[in-house]
Amino acid sequence: MSQKMNKPETVAIVGLGLLGASLGMALREKGVKRLGWTRRADIREWAVKENVIDGTAEEIHDVLSQADITVLCLPIPEIINYIELNAASWKPGSIVTDIGSVKEVIVECGEKNLTPHGVYFVGSHPMAGTEKSGPAAAFPTLYDNAEVFVTQTPNTCPAAFAGIIKLWEDINTKTVKIGVREHDILVAHTSHISHVLALALTEAVLDCPEKEQKLRYSGCATGFRDTSRITSSSPQMWREIIENNQPAVLETVKEVEKRWRHIRQIIESRQYDQLQEEFAKGKKLRDDWIKYKNSTQKCNW
Amino acid sequence: MSQKMNKPETVAIVGLGLLGASLGMALREKGVKRLGWTRRADIREWAVKENVIDGTAEEIHDVLSQADITVLCLPIPEIINYIELNAASWKPGSIVTDIGSVKEVIVECGEKNLTPHGVYFVGSHPMAGTEKSGPAAAFPTLYDNAEVFVTQTPNTCPAAFAGIIKLWEDINTKTVKIGVREHDILVAHTSHISHVLALALTEAVLDCPEKEQKLRYSGCATGFRDTSRITSSSPQMWREIIENNQPAVLETVKEVEKRWRHIRQIIESRQYDQLQEEFAKGKKLRDDWIKYKNSTQKCNW
Repeated sequence: MSQKMNKPETVAIVGLGLLGASLGMALREKGVKRLGWTRRADIREWAVKENVIDGTAEEIHDVLSQADITVLCLPIPEIINYIELNAASWKPGSIVTDIGSVKEVIVECGEKNLTPHGVYFVGSHPMAGTEKSGPAAAFPTLYDNAEVFVTQTPNTCPAAFAGIIKLWEDINTKTVKIGVREHDILVAHTSHISHVLALALTEAVLDCPEKEQKLRYSGCATGFRDTSRITSSSPQMWREIIENNQPAVLETVKEVEKRWRHIRQIIESRQYDQLQEEFAKGKKLRDDWIKYKNSTQKCNW
Repeated sequence: MSQKMNKPETVAIVGLGLLGASLGMALREKGVKRLGWTRRADIREWAVKENVIDGTAEEIHDVLSQADITVLCLPIPEIINYIELNAASWKPGSIVTDIGSVKEVIVECGEKNLTPHGVYFVGSHPMAGTEKSGPAAAFPTLYDNAEVFVTQTPNTCPAAFAGIIKLWEDINTKTVKIGVREHDILVAHTSHISHVLALALTEAVLDCPEKEQKLRYSGCATGFRDTSRITSSSPQMWREIIENNQPAVLETVKEVEKRWRHIRQIIESRQYDQLQEEFAKGKKLRDDWIKYKNSTQKCNW
């Protein structure tokens, strides 16, 4: 495999939505041949015409069989389906990765189905995205400065792992090595639970009698806009993420409820000095995180 | 009063933080004389030098006594203090308003203290701000397209009310007439509760054992950044807002908990089709609101 790493690679991108098409754009002029595939022929044609990818094919097999590295940029159930259905298409020694927001179910499926074919699977999860989806929402800097989790298990081939790390770092991301279970618990906290909270907030604010709605609309400004932003994400995608990470999400639900009950109790008992301390604690926690991101990732947040 | 409205007015801005200094900038070249006052002499000098205001004075009395309209751009307890302490400084027939995020306590105080001096009080609440504070954070377009609640009570003078409406509309905001109690219940939903939720989320995600913190930092991306943004707001300001709107905030806490429990129960019982419907409902509620804002306020959100 070390020989292959030295010559220009063929990278296959399967799925040309927000993440897949943005990946194609980010890989422009990075010295790799970009092949792309998605079910809809018109999107495949659009992607070639717009220089999102260098080439495509009618049949997915003809793309996968040429790839040194394949990135499955699909919804979680589709990642699993595609691995199961196309396991025999990849060439031995090639590497498959994905962009799914959960890792345990996907990596288990990848290792189980691809190892018998001499194909390596390494899970990836780029912390990149917007509340929009589809190829029209794609842009070449989506991954800029993003952190990308790359998973290791006892079965992970070190050279395949290094190949995936290199791919992500070539497009200006920062990679973080992590175990699959550890990953899923982590993102339940840092990402998945926010979607549950934002949904509860949006419903509490906007799901009201029609005669009140205009006034509610007026009362919602930039604070609500940002706190609720992720409520505009794909309902199907977030259903699938939580469906595939339910136990960790429920643990995080308990953690948020603990904090919420504490703050509610402070407000109920009118302990406003303590409320101010609590707000100051939250501000410090977030401001420290922002400082870290700005210093380590040039985020300018 | 109708005569006064026809000649250029003197507008006094008391408090030159984010909202006060931005108001001064927004009122540039609007045909009014802008006087400003704040406790710190260096900020007053800065504001004159930077054309945030046209003039100032050593003593607050000398500013208030010249004003046709005064806007108190101060924290809630300071608005109340300033009205009580300076009630005799304003000239009869002049109008005082404010930018406080709660209205009942402020308007009661304004009417009670100013009416005996022949001074009119009209409460205002511009839905504008950022998580930052202080004069250095001010910018001239802060109020652009913002909605501004202007309160009416049985004691409100129609001409004074019209004068305040005109002031806000002159700086490109959209005014909304509302009762004080109705206002406070509304913003508990559309604004105050978000700060409680964002605080609980920030603590659940970032208040963790030190050895886990680096990884939590990596796992937090743009979703968390936006959902938690308002946690970086002023702890003192938000303590004061909730302190002065506690019953309405607690009602809203109950409303959010009802929604939260429902969603949690769906996740616990693995009703994922229903979870997807719930996410779709939230998305539609928010997307409809965004469409409304973009069409009525040219927000481009």
